[in-house]
Amino acid sequence: MQWVTVLRTASSWTQHLPVQFRILRLLSNHLPNQVTEVAEKQLSHQQNAGASKRNPILKVPKGTRDFSPLQMAIREKIFSTIISCFKRHGAMTIDTPVFELKELLQENYGEEAKLIYDLEDQGGEMLSLRYDLTVPFARFLAMNKIKRCKRYHIAKVYRRDSPSIKKGRFREFIQCDFDIAGQYDPMIPDAECLKVMHEILTALQVGDFLIKINDRRILQGIFTICGIPEIKFERLCSTLDKLDKISWEEVKNEMILEDGISPECVNCISEYVQLHGGPGLIEKLLKDPKLVQNRLAMEGLEDMKLLFEYLTLFGIIDQVSLHLSLARGLAYYTGVIYEAVLLCHKHSHLNESLNLRSVAGGGRYDELVAKFDSRGHKVPCVGLSIGVERLFSIIEQNNEMSKQKIRTRETQVLVATPQKNFLAFKMKLISELWNAGIKAEMLYKKNPRLLEQLQYCEETGIPLAIIVGEQELNDGIVKLRDVVTRKEVNIPQENFIEEIKRRLEKYNT
Amino acid sequence: MQWVTVLRTASSWTQHLPVQFRILRLLSNHLPNQVTEVAEKQLSHQQNAGASKRNPILKVPKGTRDFSPLQMAIREKIFSTIISCFKRHGAMTIDTPVFELKELLQENYGEEAKLIYDLEDQGGEMLSLRYDLTVPFARFLAMNKIKRCKRYHIAKVYRRDSPSIKKGRFREFIQCDFDIAGQYDPMIPDAECLKVMHEILTALQVGDFLIKINDRRILQGIFTICGIPEIKFERLCSTLDKLDKISWEEVKNEMILEDGISPECVNCISEYVQLHGGPGLIEKLLKDPKLVQNRLAMEGLEDMKLLFEYLTLFGIIDQVSLHLSLARGLAYYTGVIYEAVLLCHKHSHLNESLNLRSVAGGGRYDELVAKFDSRGHKVPCVGLSIGVERLFSIIEQNNEMSKQKIRTRETQVLVATPQKNFLAFKMKLISELWNAGIKAEMLYKKNPRLLEQLQYCEETGIPLAIIVGEQELNDGIVKLRDVVTRKEVNIPQENFIEEIKRRLEKYNT
Repeated sequence: MQWVTVLRTASSWTQHLPVQFRILRLLSNHLPNQVTEVAEKQLSHQQNAGASKRNPILKVPKGTRDFSPLQMAIREKIFSTIISCFKRHGAMTIDTPVFELKELLQENYGEEAKLIYDLEDQGGEMLSLRYDLTVPFARFLAMNKIKRCKRYHIAKVYRRDSPSIKKGRFREFIQCDFDIAGQYDPMIPDAECLKVMHEILTALQVGDFLIKINDRRILQGIFTICGIPEIKFERLCSTLDKLDKISWEEVKNEMILEDGISPECVNCISEYVQLHGGPGLIEKLLKDPKLVQNRLAMEGLEDMKLLFEYLTLFGIIDQVSLHLSLARGLAYYTGVIYEAVLLCHKHSHLNESLNLRSVAGGGRYDELVAKFDSRGHKVPCVGLSIGVERLFSIIEQNNEMSKQKIRTRETQVLVATPQKNFLAFKMKLISELWNAGIKAEMLYKKNPRLLEQLQYCEETGIPLAIIVGEQELNDGIVKLRDVVTRKEVNIPQENFIEEIKRRLEKYNT
Repeated sequence: MQWVTVLRTASSWTQHLPVQFRILRLLSNHLPNQVTEVAEKQLSHQQNAGASKRNPILKVPKGTRDFSPLQMAIREKIFSTIISCFKRHGAMTIDTPVFELKELLQENYGEEAKLIYDLEDQGGEMLSLRYDLTVPFARFLAMNKIKRCKRYHIAKVYRRDSPSIKKGRFREFIQCDFDIAGQYDPMIPDAECLKVMHEILTALQVGDFLIKINDRRILQGIFTICGIPEIKFERLCSTLDKLDKISWEEVKNEMILEDGISPECVNCISEYVQLHGGPGLIEKLLKDPKLVQNRLAMEGLEDMKLLFEYLTLFGIIDQVSLHLSLARGLAYYTGVIYEAVLLCHKHSHLNESLNLRSVAGGGRYDELVAKFDSRGHKVPCVGLSIGVERLFSIIEQNNEMSKQKIRTRETQVLVATPQKNFLAFKMKLISELWNAGIKAEMLYKKNPRLLEQLQYCEETGIPLAIIVGEQELNDGIVKLRDVVTRKEVNIPQENFIEEIKRRLEKYNT
């Protein structure tokens, strides 16, 4: 409500419109969507009427954002954690263009294809921005006739969804994908994907999490024995997938009213999909009198049993649970599917809507590559995607809470002087530092004040300052100052590089 | 000609169209553009007529490309060299969306704006893909009212130019930008930009290079004293910029015939722009009877003199030269401009068109941020952009020549077994390795042959293999094999992690 008041007050201003506009833009990053849109419309109207043509509207497109140096420092730590895990598991990386041929994307996302961004027809091919990294990966495998590949790919994807900053949903966001393509013995790569997911969520220190697992074959088996015609399976998976947003009662209603399933069938499904548990549940389901009739479900359950054995060997079984309600939205999954959710108690200070939401997901898609191959050659695949935008929001909020200072640049040494006319000497010194691989800065002033130089170190977290003046020049030394302790030592100019390198080791920069 | 033959033969096939089509697509990456386009038209016609709807055309959009794991390994080394230099100079990083509001981009590129990719109007804002990283940076500074910022940004940009793989010109390519924004003492940040460019080109080991420098103010001074009206300056800079593609005679003709400059004026310009040299030339120009009349040219020359002093202190003067013909294409430059070219003798084996072309460029743009600011507040900026695609082509070709083996994954240890039924034990071992941060793989087979496992090490460059079998299990040891020397040692299971870490140090992986 507070924001609305600010907005109303703002709207009544009539002068200094562009400034007002920019302030509102800044605020709007933190506003619920509807309010922002109303304000936007009002303001663009006024802007168009009053402002000169010289200044274009200063904003980023809806659903996208800039990242400041501070945010980038946090994000790069997250990416580096994720990449080192992917590399630890022997993955290579590839890159594909940000857009693909439109027809190539249109056919692979079912209903969601309406959210694809298209490029304007400016002559030439019809193009669309990629919707995920999985379809481009499958296209890459088919195009290059690759039968085996373990790759990771960290890149931006685009969805014309209704954005919600609050829920961490954007139109441009980064996916971190790890996939294993190839025909292998059952469940070994699948288990590794879950181990990768577990390692990353552990390393990012976002608190307790649970990895829910299911198998599309088990779900399909349940649908079949409950009398659902096969044509409705995909639709039902989409509906079930809403369980993390709406209640089971609402999902049931939607199945009856929108998907056209009879109440009896829904009750039958209901009995199964509310089950969750570990190896005990698998054993029970393997003996379920109705399920044993269904070959597909039995295959899925046998594989699930094997998977749980492997996850026990990998030591991650405690954070994993079979959830028969897990469906995953995308059409291309064919076997095991999984999704990681954070357990909320550790994040009580967080924006509520960030809690209990999926932060990673994935599964097996054995048929997708074949769709691109002219002869329909299959390349079975299994993979995972880390929902880095949501994790970023959580880690950013945690950092704000802890008031932990994060450096946005890595500079190790500032070259400073207390006297005038030392620019030339400083330039020679800093040049030696750079050439020795030391991260160094100096102020871009001919004669800065010493205080200003030392303040710059304190503000930006530079641990060491080299101070050179008349005295030091005459004595053939440089003064080395520890910015935090303010202790100073004199070191001979001839070996100052080695001495600085030696001292930098302890700062771990 | 060889390719054309292949194509004709291919076009006469009537069966197995999709396969033929894919082969041609593969070939087309190496074909001159026109031939490819003819083939494309023929083939899409046949494809549409004959092929089933199931297989979309398997290609990437025109002017774009996938990068294989091997190419990515080379590219990541290049990026890491560039980023560590940017960080050594104290730069932070930011990120901006891949698209911006269309109106924001349209006004800033002059004639080149026709090459901007627009997004389709799907309701909502009109958007375009970014054309460079400089305009988004200026928009970011103005929007956030930032007065000082040293940032780097490595990201993809988009230009609907006619692509030429041969010349290393793509429609999607990465720019590596480093910029210093803020009001500082003259030429200090400018000199650092040139030092950064010099460090990067040296570190990438692409052979000898020359950094050509000029100043837009000097050029404008020359145009003025040669009697050119100011309105033609921008146009003349564009024409002059073609000097690295066409001869001076052709540029002169274009100036006369297309830009409408009189032959006398062109001769006057000609006398100046053919000059190049070092501090001596600057001194000469500072005394040039015609130039001394022009305030702007004198300002530019005084700054140039200062810049050369700084570059001498930075120790990079030998690779720098004042070239009065250097103009740079983009409209937003206001002061010093520069461009680095490789000197060809070291690359005689290279594709000729890659030689002698600009691999880095930049300059000062003091007015761009003000264009976005409602009150026209100036934030002077100077920066550089590394042409990483061209450097990548050169380094890739150099690597091919040297037959140097490049690893595409970083795996340090393979967990192998000579016997059947050891999967569970291997899984426990590998899990301990992963948890200790060691990069480890195993084959995704229950019972792989030992030979196959060792071959995998040799093929992918994994330096160590852990071998566990019945004997080792009973003795409480693991066998550690150096893949290259084939020497094996037994180490106790209880401290195998420490032992492996110790041994890995010498492999520097």
